[in-house]
Amino acid sequence: MRDIQKEPDRRNVALDEVGIVGVLCPVNVMDRTAGLQATVARVRMSVDLPHRYRGTHMSRFMEILSRFRDDIRFESLERMLEEMKERFEAKEAHIEFEFPYFISKDAPVSGATGLMDYVCRFRASLGARFDFVLEVEVPIQTLCPCSKEISDKGAHNQRARVTVGVRMHGLVWIEDLVQAAEASASSALFPILKRRDEKHVTDHAYRHPRFVEDVAREIALRMDRNERVTWYRVDVRSFESIHNYNAYASLERDKAT
Amino acid sequence: MRDIQKEPDRRNVALDEVGIVGVLCPVNVMDRTAGLQATVARVRMSVDLPHRYRGTHMSRFMEILSRFRDDIRFESLERMLEEMKERFEAKEAHIEFEFPYFISKDAPVSGATGLMDYVCRFRASLGARFDFVLEVEVPIQTLCPCSKEISDKGAHNQRARVTVGVRMHGLVWIEDLVQAAEASASSALFPILKRRDEKHVTDHAYRHPRFVEDVAREIALRMDRNERVTWYRVDVRSFESIHNYNAYASLERDKAT
Amino acid sequence: MRDIQKEPDRRNVALDEVGIVGVLCPVNVMDRTAGLQATVARVRMSVDLPHRYRGTHMSRFMEILSRFRDDIRFESLERMLEEMKERFEAKEAHIEFEFPYFISKDAPVSGATGLMDYVCRFRASLGARFDFVLEVEVPIQTLCPCSKEISDKGAHNQRARVTVGVRMHGLVWIEDLVQAAEASASSALFPILKRRDEKHVTDHAYRHPRFVEDVAREIALRMDRNERVTWYRVDVRSFESIHNYNAYASLERDKAT
Amino acid sequence: MRDIQKEPDRRNVALDEVGIVGVLCPVNVMDRTAGLQATVARVRMSVDLPHRYRGTHMSRFMEILSRFRDDIRFESLERMLEEMKERFEAKEAHIEFEFPYFISKDAPVSGATGLMDYVCRFRASLGARFDFVLEVEVPIQTLCPCSKEISDKGAHNQRARVTVGVRMHGLVWIEDLVQAAEASASSALFPILKRRDEKHVTDHAYRHPRFVEDVAREIALRMDRNERVTWYRVDVRSFESIHNYNAYASLERDKAT
Repeated sequence: MRDIQKEPDRRNVALDEVGIVGVLCPVNVMDRTAGLQATVARVRMSVDLPHRYRGTHMSRFMEILSRFRDDIRFESLERMLEEMKERFEAKEAHIEFEFPYFISKDAPVSGATGLMDYVCRFRASLGARFDFVLEVEVPIQTLCPCSKEISDKGAHNQRARVTVGVRMHGLVWIEDLVQAAEASASSALFPILKRRDEKHVTDHAYRHPRFVEDVAREIALRMDRNERVTWYRVDVRSFESIHNYNAYASLERDKAT
Repeated sequence: MRDIQKEPDRRNVALDEVGIVGVLCPVNVMDRTAGLQATVARVRMSVDLPHRYRGTHMSRFMEILSRFRDDIRFESLERMLEEMKERFEAKEAHIEFEFPYFISKDAPVSGATGLMDYVCRFRASLGARFDFVLEVEVPIQTLCPCSKEISDKGAHNQRARVTVGVRMHGLVWIEDLVQAAEASASSALFPILKRRDEKHVTDHAYRHPRFVEDVAREIALRMDRNERVTWYRVDVRSFESIHNYNAYASLERDKAT
Repeated sequence: MRDIQKEPDRRNVALDEVGIVGVLCPVNVMDRTAGLQATVARVRMSVDLPHRYRGTHMSRFMEILSRFRDDIRFESLERMLEEMKERFEAKEAHIEFEFPYFISKDAPVSGATGLMDYVCRFRASLGARFDFVLEVEVPIQTLCPCSKEISDKGAHNQRARVTVGVRMHGLVWIEDLVQAAEASASSALFPILKRRDEKHVTDHAYRHPRFVEDVAREIALRMDRNERVTWYRVDVRSFESIHNYNAYASLERDKAT
Repeated sequence: MRDIQKEPDRRNVALDEVGIVGVLCPVNVMDRTAGLQATVARVRMSVDLPHRYRGTHMSRFMEILSRFRDDIRFESLERMLEEMKERFEAKEAHIEFEFPYFISKDAPVSGATGLMDYVCRFRASLGARFDFVLEVEVPIQTLCPCSKEISDKGAHNQRARVTVGVRMHGLVWIEDLVQAAEASASSALFPILKRRDEKHVTDHAYRHPRFVEDVAREIALRMDRNERVTWYRVDVRSFESIHNYNAYASLERDKAT
């Protein structure tokens, strides 16, 4: 049978990435408390394609994914990328996992426990060196400082979403980024709140008004202080309760420069 | 050329609906103020298929849509469905338009004007008789009565979304449903708010705390009082600012029964 | 602390459903092969609210979900609904789980194995009696019979999506519905295909041309023959490779009537 | 009334972007044939925020948008950004419009006419200089060269989506990018096809098999030849009809380097 993908290509156009996207896959990811956590990931995998080859055998990505999906952590990601480079004879390999990660969380007064979900992403590449970005989406509450200041009582507030991504030297946990985002908010969100918890959360948010600008800056300061973080990007967007659109603030910083 | 769709089918299975979905189309829809409003609709069109035919010529839906898209209103919808029944030799025809509808709205104190967008749906069918459902999604603010009652200051609030659908006798405008939903909320949302408007909106919401249950009931009472409404369905869901999930309340009522 | 939700409501409007939606939760669901399968579900839970109460204590839904999420099957769903009715003093309780379900699948010639994902839904209600609908989305291939007939070579084909929901008497497995949908298609989809598999799949699809109308009817016949199925609904939509919209066919049948 | 946003901030963190996102707005965009086309855009607007200010007055974005939305073209985008820089005392201003753009398209044999929709994006920034990226999503058909080669009859094919973005020197029209993408595909998609058109499209696709890799390269060659294009990025992903995931190929090239 002819192998068309392997045939030479004369158009002289190298491709940056050739791969598969939108693969859904049950995975185990590293969990600070439990060691491993079972979840479901959406996966993207790719390699570069030199100008001289016509195409890629996409099924190989699936085979590699199958072998590694039971234990996704930093070390295995690097081995996975090495194998991709080898099998595809590529100079660069890329992989992204996006998955909900669950953390048990207690209500602030009653201690009632439930699970919070956070969308996480592992973005890893291997060219000349290994590159890894950990990204976490953290839902928070923001209470508007302007609304609080000018109004007789109360202040408009809303759900907002922080996306914080980091490059690291040493290990930064998903839990560390969640903690940084929640500590920078008017309030964290909770899976279960009894009435006495709801009072606590409402009062706490009222005492900690935050624009999206404030949240982004507070997280930036925390990332600056964390010596394991070498690069970060922060995006905060709030689903304004008084408008039908969202406000956002973002910044990116490479601490090496 | 053989016409496979027209060939007889011996499986003896009639189909309820055969058609096209996800068609994007620029349309003009009836506008209470301006007569017609230009917007973009996502369209679904279908007819029933008797057991004796193998298939449907889908391109005819697109031809009919092309001819009617410039003037979408109650009367033209009925003519459109009649033409669908004729062309397809069908007993029933269905059509749905979903589109953003824009209404100019003034800030409550400064009068600053901007456009608010509301997702609307026209759902029309013609079998033995013409059936029409008008559905409108209205973003609102809800401020939690429990949080207000038990907290020292402030109360958690958030963006919420009302979906209200009606069958009618006489004309009910999109604007009527928007007005009913906004009047039942802790506050309406606005495109532009100056600081003195923001103070007004914050104070108003604090004086009008509403659970999703309250909003659903207030809208129901308004639909009960509106003599042109013969049937309604209300769904209210709030993007809770203290939880990572949404609370909702819904009811449906046929006033004839 | 005042309990506002429990206070009497004088508006005299009963609500059909009050609850939570969009909860993400790790669950174990029944798996024909392995007993249980770990996945992640999006959950909706609700009860009716009598006209005399103002609101519902939403956190109770989360507490019930926490206790049952480790073992979601028919029996536990009914117990879950019973507990919801009791805790909320409700006449009706509703629950919906939507989750990706993974099935190991071999390539038709090489036998190369990988995981296919199918979106499943459990929809259960308990009023006077227990009602359960199992719904599965099955991606398939459809190859156009008209295009095959009139063209010199080849025929346009595409990915399509079957949604089949059933009520049952006795047990119908997710795997049964997947099998019925794939057997009614031009071809099933596969996680991994080697070149000799791809030849087999291409040839098979070419020999089994199917309109969406054909697929819907073939599945209907299979559901008619399955004595455990008492009611079904089938929706087939194809992401046409020659148009920028989707074609669909649907039917619903209650075998008792 | 205190103006909190204007108050000094002592955290010494400058923000890259502060703005609004998810605004829906009716707009008129430049249309090669008709001069202007009415459509609906999703808009994002932002400016940088120096470290010394606490926040931004978000309502000003909406006011500027209101004044410009009737005539969105290169020239007006630059004026809009200039006004944003002035009003916000910013060093950089950014704006993005995403909208469906409609082009009338004839069937290849019958000439039957209908509208095709293409998602377009204008991304413009003004810092030291004006930067503009035009991005267009073009749905196409890809027919697998490998499947064609190894199979007895037919070949699997599917809908795919090209995203091509360009920077330019002189004017490149949306229509130019659509044409480049469709000419690089196995076949273009059409709004209306009669049977004789469907034969033509099926035969044409069978004679022009293309991997996503091929499509990306063919578009790259066209962009290389177009002297008005100074930079481009191409992404092609196909909704594989034999797999439940998508294959993709992408490249980016700055012709100046």
